Amino acid sequence: MLRCTRKLFNLSKNRQYTTSISQPVSVRIVEVGPRDGLQNEPTILPASVKIELINQLSGTGLRTIEATSFVSAKWVPQMGDNAEVLKGINKLPGISYPVLTPNLKGFQAAMEAGAEEVAVFGAASESFSRKNVNCSVEESIARFKDVMDAAQKANVKVRGYVSTVVGCPYEGEIKPSAVVRVVDKLLEMGCYEISLGDTIGVGTPGSFAKMLREVTKIAPVNMLAVHCHDTYGQALPNILTSLDFGIGVVDASVSGLGGCPYARGASGNAATEDVVYMLHGLGIETGIDLAKLVNVGKFICEKLQRQSESKVNRAMRKTNPNAC
Amino acid sequence: MLRCTRKLFNLSKNRQYTTSISQPVSVRIVEVGPRDGLQNEPTILPASVKIELINQLSGTGLRTIEATSFVSAKWVPQMGDNAEVLKGINKLPGISYPVLTPNLKGFQAAMEAGAEEVAVFGAASESFSRKNVNCSVEESIARFKDVMDAAQKANVKVRGYVSTVVGCPYEGEIKPSAVVRVVDKLLEMGCYEISLGDTIGVGTPGSFAKMLREVTKIAPVNMLAVHCHDTYGQALPNILTSLDFGIGVVDASVSGLGGCPYARGASGNAATEDVVYMLHGLGIETGIDLAKLVNVGKFICEKLQRQSESKVNRAMRKTNPNAC
Repeated sequence: MLRCTRKLFNLSKNRQYTTSISQPVSVRIVEVGPRDGLQNEPTILPASVKIELINQLSGTGLRTIEATSFVSAKWVPQMGDNAEVLKGINKLPGISYPVLTPNLKGFQAAMEAGAEEVAVFGAASESFSRKNVNCSVEESIARFKDVMDAAQKANVKVRGYVSTVVGCPYEGEIKPSAVVRVVDKLLEMGCYEISLGDTIGVGTPGSFAKMLREVTKIAPVNMLAVHCHDTYGQALPNILTSLDFGIGVVDASVSGLGGCPYARGASGNAATEDVVYMLHGLGIETGIDLAKLVNVGKFICEKLQRQSESKVNRAMRKTNPNAC
Repeated sequence: MLRCTRKLFNLSKNRQYTTSISQPVSVRIVEVGPRDGLQNEPTILPASVKIELINQLSGTGLRTIEATSFVSAKWVPQMGDNAEVLKGINKLPGISYPVLTPNLKGFQAAMEAGAEEVAVFGAASESFSRKNVNCSVEESIARFKDVMDAAQKANVKVRGYVSTVVGCPYEGEIKPSAVVRVVDKLLEMGCYEISLGDTIGVGTPGSFAKMLREVTKIAPVNMLAVHCHDTYGQALPNILTSLDFGIGVVDASVSGLGGCPYARGASGNAATEDVVYMLHGLGIETGIDLAKLVNVGKFICEKLQRQSESKVNRAMRKTNPNAC
């Protein structure tokens, strides 16, 4: 649902044009804490705690909770208990619990564990793709064909992630055309939604606007989501910019769980509490009970023995920032 | 200087109208770390460190650095060395070093110490005013008349602060009309610039837009500044919203020095490093050398033995967040 026609303009001095866009009246948050968050935490939690985390999140009003990742435990030990977690949670009606499946083996394991929605991922940056999956962007996407075919047969929805949409740790700035190319391929392959990820959190409202201006030319805005990391503190302004483009799906991680492997000690994902606070302040509905969410953040930070990275969480509990 | 005509709209469902506004091409940062920052830090630093901080800040490209406050040392012991600090710094040409002067006695002491610009402050919230200065908003502003008269005679510029512009710790939401009233009075009394302060950091782009829509009706946008606290993580999105209204002066505090006395342990001012990173990403000039600023943040955090609250600072130095 959209409201309020708004005129946006190109910030670039060279190209200026005007396009009509809208800010959404409601936003769906995709909670990625149990997967993208915990995957990047140094502490490996027992499956029982992860199950408890997801069950608690299910009670906050969230409609999408990414539960785990079916990758090799050799590469991502934090997700080695994927089947146990997915089988162990109380799946509530109306809530989707997608899981990451990088290949057919992962997809089959996910199906056996009861997955009803999966996600695949490609990079916008060639260097990032080569360093991470040892092949070109095009080759990496072609590898998902098996997953896409199997998902279609099983009537399972597939979400597509695109990483490094504005910046890459190896090659710096990423051109919007590189993002457009990957988004186009993932849509063509049948993804129902594309999450645009600023993996290393270097983006600003300037680079986000530049990227979104091009991507929204080839992709329907209601098939796009944003996934912002807060490494440089820009997650909320980048999300605000994305709302101005009409994007109505935002990935976030409770208490900002996670981190950035390319800037050790830096912040992780946008904190769900802070995103929800901003959205509610804008009069945008999320269906989420912020007080309940703050309690979930408290719970998981205590288990990880770390401070909440959510400023809303810390302010609402008015505690010493060193205590979680 | 302004560029890029942009259409904004009223987010309220009841009143919708369109107004033409612009985002600035350059922004002047008012660095408030040495005053608003250090005033709210539990550690009281020696004057020599404060002088070194201000001298280092003078080398970053900043054009306005609020140096200290001429208030009673009984009430604000952190600023007890105000004259020593103001006399001790190297004042560079082209840089302004304003000081806070709540009354004539403070103004006279500031003049004796060589101040060339001063600042006064009023609250938008009646309860906040009564709790803090034990009189109504109107009475508190009337008390500045002596300062304004003396400043005019001495040819000294006066900046006006308005606190609690969107929320108050005692009465909650603040109506834009209350802010309009105070801004109007301060302009009438001769302030050359009004800084709109979200003292407790509860604002969002929603409440900021609502407030700024009314204030910009009665005040020229080039006489307005914003002063955002990051208690709820909303400082950058609120600043972004203010830029959209054409506001070109932003208060910030190096490494987010300071805190919020109404939410103990919560974050303080918007961190200058993070604001500058966002502005540069938007293609907005500040004249500030970000790398130099990061080093100043490192210096002062080491002296305070605290972590930098600037995510840009932590990411650019790629250190453990527990070390400053």
